[in-house]
Amino acid sequence: MTDQTRTTFAGVSRIEDLSPGEFAAEVNPEWTIGGKPNGGYLLAMLGRASARSVAHQHILAASAHYLHSPKPGPVTLTTEVLRTGRSVSQVRGRMAQDGTPCVEATFTLGTLAPDAAPYWSDGLPEPVECAQADCTPVTGSAIGGPGPAIMDQVDLRIQPDDFGFGRGKPSGAGTLRGWLGLPGGEDFNPISLLYAVDAFPPATLDIALTGWVPTLELTAYVRALPAPGPVRVLHKAQLIEGNKVDEACFVWDSRGRLVAQATQLAGIRLDRPE
Amino acid sequence: MTDQTRTTFAGVSRIEDLSPGEFAAEVNPEWTIGGKPNGGYLLAMLGRASARSVAHQHILAASAHYLHSPKPGPVTLTTEVLRTGRSVSQVRGRMAQDGTPCVEATFTLGTLAPDAAPYWSDGLPEPVECAQADCTPVTGSAIGGPGPAIMDQVDLRIQPDDFGFGRGKPSGAGTLRGWLGLPGGEDFNPISLLYAVDAFPPATLDIALTGWVPTLELTAYVRALPAPGPVRVLHKAQLIEGNKVDEACFVWDSRGRLVAQATQLAGIRLDRPE
Repeated sequence: MTDQTRTTFAGVSRIEDLSPGEFAAEVNPEWTIGGKPNGGYLLAMLGRASARSVAHQHILAASAHYLHSPKPGPVTLTTEVLRTGRSVSQVRGRMAQDGTPCVEATFTLGTLAPDAAPYWSDGLPEPVECAQADCTPVTGSAIGGPGPAIMDQVDLRIQPDDFGFGRGKPSGAGTLRGWLGLPGGEDFNPISLLYAVDAFPPATLDIALTGWVPTLELTAYVRALPAPGPVRVLHKAQLIEGNKVDEACFVWDSRGRLVAQATQLAGIRLDRPE
Repeated sequence: MTDQTRTTFAGVSRIEDLSPGEFAAEVNPEWTIGGKPNGGYLLAMLGRASARSVAHQHILAASAHYLHSPKPGPVTLTTEVLRTGRSVSQVRGRMAQDGTPCVEATFTLGTLAPDAAPYWSDGLPEPVECAQADCTPVTGSAIGGPGPAIMDQVDLRIQPDDFGFGRGKPSGAGTLRGWLGLPGGEDFNPISLLYAVDAFPPATLDIALTGWVPTLELTAYVRALPAPGPVRVLHKAQLIEGNKVDEACFVWDSRGRLVAQATQLAGIRLDRPE
């Protein structure tokens, strides 16, 4: 990574006000996989636009349908405030490029209390136990580069047991666990957590080495304000059927608290059903 | 249940074309809980409008944000086709009443093959083992009536172990498992599955006996065409924090195949914490 290609998340997800409910942004060419921008990154941009459109500042829920992958370069974001309430507000957002809708997303925003604590939980997975230093950095070259450009921007590490795909031997478990840090050690917030839930490679790489696994729909819930530092991620495939896969994602902060969770439905082509 | 109040799902979710992308519908007073219409029922109406707006007929993914609970009575549904593709199309839908937006939903539609079969799965829960006949029918009176009107319309049964809330003694597990049948034994399809994923009482009733648990966001994936007959449902709370709870839902058809899955984020007031 050279200084020239170094980015910050705040920088690459920056939006500029054009008029009320209309924003300009620039999809960064480095935050891509095979030239296609990461879906969570695009959702975060729209999340930023939604938060700028209402008084509530924290994304609680975001759901996005992906229509058309924008090219790196300028995009426009438009928001429509659906409702402003006392405890939550809802905003619809759309990203378009050259007049073509790319991402349609809806947000529920509210206020996350810094001192909130879990009241009850059950059935949630546990965060990865492997220390960050013992996990394998996923860089472009680590997975047979020139790999996804985005992997040379963020600090994404996968625990060795789950990194079979990097050695050409998926474990078959369909689970990827590891750590994620933003460029320059930038701390996470509810906006960048929308990227975190889609940051890991498709969990299906731990099942079969397929090509692009395009996200059709992604829903994320932000559950708590993240503590400073990198986050731990668990990304898991659940069912592959009819060329579709659903994946669940869980994100814990440095305190070990669940801060975000997500599901996505993606397309998958299993041309080597083995 | 008298003949007078008998409904069919096809009937209560019927929509009428007004103009391209605009539909009229009637929220049925019996499909309510404390006078408020069931959220999955409203989503199914919007799903029907979305399927009428494009060539693709099966909902694959639906995500809804709930803004304002409509009263029973007339509503208008508007759809906007976001993209029509070869394999999938995307449609945005909105339900409004007297000009007030009530539900904002986005749909990805495609074609579910009748002969599709699971290719791979892992980590999914198992459907309830308790036979339908051995589960406890949840009617208005069964839960200390006059209960939710909707429970006198559908055939919803919960396995005895999970029905502690009906006896005033939640088990604490936060899981409700059982069976669901539509009025008159109507078979399920991808539209009515959008109701099925939100049909069960809040899984939090198995933790604490609170009041209304209003859904903020609901995302459903339809994974397969359901076989005829009732479906089995598992509805599970995962984390309660900051007056919000996420619930996961899984729906299996009479063959035991996972046909739909969903997550929702809902508000919860724990005024009796313990």
